[in-house]
Amino acid sequence: MVRDDFHERLAALDASLVSMARTVTEMMGRASRALLTSDPELARQIVATDAQVNQLRNTVDDQVAELMLLQQPMARDLRFMLAAIRITGDLERMGDLAKHIAKIALLRAPASAVPSEAAPLFTSLSEVAVRIATKMTQILSTRDQLDATQLSLDDDEMDALHKKVFAKLFSDWPYGVEAAVDFTLLGRFYERYADHAVNIAHQVVYLVTGDVQLRD
Amino acid sequence: MVRDDFHERLAALDASLVSMARTVTEMMGRASRALLTSDPELARQIVATDAQVNQLRNTVDDQVAELMLLQQPMARDLRFMLAAIRITGDLERMGDLAKHIAKIALLRAPASAVPSEAAPLFTSLSEVAVRIATKMTQILSTRDQLDATQLSLDDDEMDALHKKVFAKLFSDWPYGVEAAVDFTLLGRFYERYADHAVNIAHQVVYLVTGDVQLRD
Repeated sequence: MVRDDFHERLAALDASLVSMARTVTEMMGRASRALLTSDPELARQIVATDAQVNQLRNTVDDQVAELMLLQQPMARDLRFMLAAIRITGDLERMGDLAKHIAKIALLRAPASAVPSEAAPLFTSLSEVAVRIATKMTQILSTRDQLDATQLSLDDDEMDALHKKVFAKLFSDWPYGVEAAVDFTLLGRFYERYADHAVNIAHQVVYLVTGDVQLRD
Repeated sequence: MVRDDFHERLAALDASLVSMARTVTEMMGRASRALLTSDPELARQIVATDAQVNQLRNTVDDQVAELMLLQQPMARDLRFMLAAIRITGDLERMGDLAKHIAKIALLRAPASAVPSEAAPLFTSLSEVAVRIATKMTQILSTRDQLDATQLSLDDDEMDALHKKVFAKLFSDWPYGVEAAVDFTLLGRFYERYADHAVNIAHQVVYLVTGDVQLRD
């Protein structure tokens, strides 16, 4: 394989990652809407999209394996490929988490899984999650290290919202145990979704600099 | 680098994976004991071990990157290295999940996070989780495909126990919302821990056969 062809294929791999990132960002916005409007049709669409994301992950991982076999990569290309393998794993989980939110919406529809009093909190969780995922998608395109590092500020906002979920649960919760279980899991799904986006930003720092960010 | 040296380093990588797997298996047994006996000292030890696991993950990932740079790997070796990158990710999360269980124990000690009536259920969750992780560790050593495929049977058992957690929560739960939140999260942590072990078994099938198992 000539070097130019190799770099074309690297660029195609990059484009696949960005496209997967866009999909899981969209999924989160739609899953949140399905949750807040108790829309079973929308929720079902997200479950279907998640199956596509899983398939896409395998396709992208195969692209990486093929590229590695075809040509001994240089250090920078190799870092990108190793990062790509980790990134597809995180993106796949983000799709799963959006699907989990959609499934809770589906399970409770036509009722709402979120008490109306808590709708503003979940609107915020959704907005922050989508904002973080949108920035992450951008960072995958631009590989801007500073933006990647600053994504943890948005994640702090997510952690603060996640604490509010527990604060609401622990201060005289009048909605019963079933709603508390949904509320607990939903809060966790949003928080994990954001964590994966931050992991991806760390991988971008790694592929640019070779530095590994230690995880919690 | 001569080929023999390369294979020695591959074997060392393999040994690191098995040792990481043993550590996260042990962590789960200890975290469960900390939970069921409300032992804050034991819980603190697990939090400390998790930091070591995170560090170890980075060391092993660096070993993979170095090996790839030093020598163009053959197809089978390459598959092993790609699998290794995914496996360290799953092992790291298993460590995190054991830590999360320990942290709930720590948060509620000297009280118990698990109502005594539910202790047998959590003893079963722990036994199945440790059994699955022990088998996974063995599969990493032996690379036995049949054992790897059969691990999903043990995971079915875990799913059945996880359903029992919800059944208990939804049938007249008398312990209040805080205990329900702990219970929900603990159930999820055990279930996710087992899922990661099954992912690792799938990676072993991939590295032996090149076949990818589609995830949920």
